[in-house]
Amino acid sequence: MRNIDEFSITQAVLGSLEGCKDARLKEVLAALVRHLHDFAREVRLTEAELMQGIDFLTAVGQKCDDKRQEFVLLSDTLGLSMLTVALNHARPAGATQATVFGPFHVEDAPRMEQGDDIAGGAPGEPLDVDVCVCALDGTPIPDAEVDVWQADEQGLYDVQIPALGQQRRARAVMRTDAEGRLRFRSIVPTAYPIPTDGPVGRMLVATGRHPWRPAHVHFMVKAPGYQTLITHVFRDADPYLDSDVVFGVRDSLVARFDKKEVQGARRLDFRFVMAPRES
Amino acid sequence: MRNIDEFSITQAVLGSLEGCKDARLKEVLAALVRHLHDFAREVRLTEAELMQGIDFLTAVGQKCDDKRQEFVLLSDTLGLSMLTVALNHARPAGATQATVFGPFHVEDAPRMEQGDDIAGGAPGEPLDVDVCVCALDGTPIPDAEVDVWQADEQGLYDVQIPALGQQRRARAVMRTDAEGRLRFRSIVPTAYPIPTDGPVGRMLVATGRHPWRPAHVHFMVKAPGYQTLITHVFRDADPYLDSDVVFGVRDSLVARFDKKEVQGARRLDFRFVMAPRES
Ligand SMILES: [Cu+2]
Ligand SMILES: [Fe+3]
Ligand SMILES: [Fe+3]
Repeated sequence: MRNIDEFSITQAVLGSLEGCKDARLKEVLAALVRHLHDFAREVRLTEAELMQGIDFLTAVGQKCDDKRQEFVLLSDTLGLSMLTVALNHARPAGATQATVFGPFHVEDAPRMEQGDDIAGGAPGEPLDVDVCVCALDGTPIPDAEVDVWQADEQGLYDVQIPALGQQRRARAVMRTDAEGRLRFRSIVPTAYPIPTDGPVGRMLVATGRHPWRPAHVHFMVKAPGYQTLITHVFRDADPYLDSDVVFGVRDSLVARFDKKEVQGARRLDFRFVMAPRES
Repeated sequence: MRNIDEFSITQAVLGSLEGCKDARLKEVLAALVRHLHDFAREVRLTEAELMQGIDFLTAVGQKCDDKRQEFVLLSDTLGLSMLTVALNHARPAGATQATVFGPFHVEDAPRMEQGDDIAGGAPGEPLDVDVCVCALDGTPIPDAEVDVWQADEQGLYDVQIPALGQQRRARAVMRTDAEGRLRFRSIVPTAYPIPTDGPVGRMLVATGRHPWRPAHVHFMVKAPGYQTLITHVFRDADPYLDSDVVFGVRDSLVARFDKKEVQGARRLDFRFVMAPRES
């Protein structure tokens, strides 16, 4: 490895990993090095551009703290997070598809009952939600745990509003009934921008991209014997459905939030089809 | 872009860059996204591995401060820095090859004269250096600026020794004489490890790599009409020549540091062949 040039260097770096005892780490790092070097050769990366990249990544790391994970935002906005979801949650035909988890889930969401209003005072147009959880063959799944969280009509999650402190709203953990159904009241979610006050926001501006996610409600559904489903239901007719900044939209996850004829509230119906746990 | 799956997502991300006004930024980012996604698909990256990667990059960013650039170390140890040097400093046959700049150059090195001892008290075995700077056809280049910096026998640069404060040693800026020659005294450099107290050090341990660079003296040579040459001269017989942690060794840059027959000092002779500036 004394004859380093723009081609031989890749083999030299791969050779340096030969002693790695962790076979998976070796496989992942070797592939990373090959693709990283191919990238640099393809674009003929200049030294100034490498330094720009290093400065950018440094700024991303320094924007992170216990509340903000800017590298997750970077992964999200480059489609790497959603790609990883797609790679790891391939589902049988007919099963509900997964999408990104997002940063706004909390562990201490309130437990609520059928029929409750989970909005908890969050501002927004009332929404009646009526979902069912079933197996691939249509069999209802009773007592499934349904964890729901969403933004309010300002596009904000409770955890983004400092004045709320530890108060939780527009989120709850509930269970399906004996027929696999769960009905509750909430509010209509609104499109929201991801945080743009950091380097990822600057990247979006520099590349002419907007920071918006189309309106959605997050669901995490758990039932014994089934793969945990982490997904969203998106509101149809949202202007950002075709340009979600984190690439999370799947056709099968778009639903109507129609006005009911009798009362004024909008209504969301959705069926979650669970994939069996791999044995 | 509502039908996101592990393949269509790459096209969706590339599509999001369509509005980018900066053609080069668009080209570089698009290539980065393609190679990054190919990497994730090839290794079937898991969500836990993505989070490990994100945690690692976050730690790299947070290790950086005004004195430490851990992302440069990461780029160096993955061979990306040297690859970028090779891509940008292709030189005509016969010209001295370039290598990595490294983090230890300073702008305020002392100016010295022919024959001076640049060690300035740095510990080490005495070394007499006798270099010449010439053009491709052998014509000597008088009055070329030669910037030299190196580690001492403990493997330390002056800037790594807090007790030295702003004191500079084992570095100098000098000029070639009318015959393109420069003679000065210094010390024999020693192999040294790159800083290992951060996440890059942990990566080296995890992959079974050592952190050592073979002994070398840094040179930056400038002369009007010629491309600035940033390179090292490596000491032959160094045990790390074939495993430099930053992949900087090129055969043509390895030289003998022999003992002179008469006096006790070792001696380094080297000829720097400058490439003409591209017009
Ligand atoms: Cu690639
Ligand atoms: Fe969300
Ligand atoms: Fe060095």
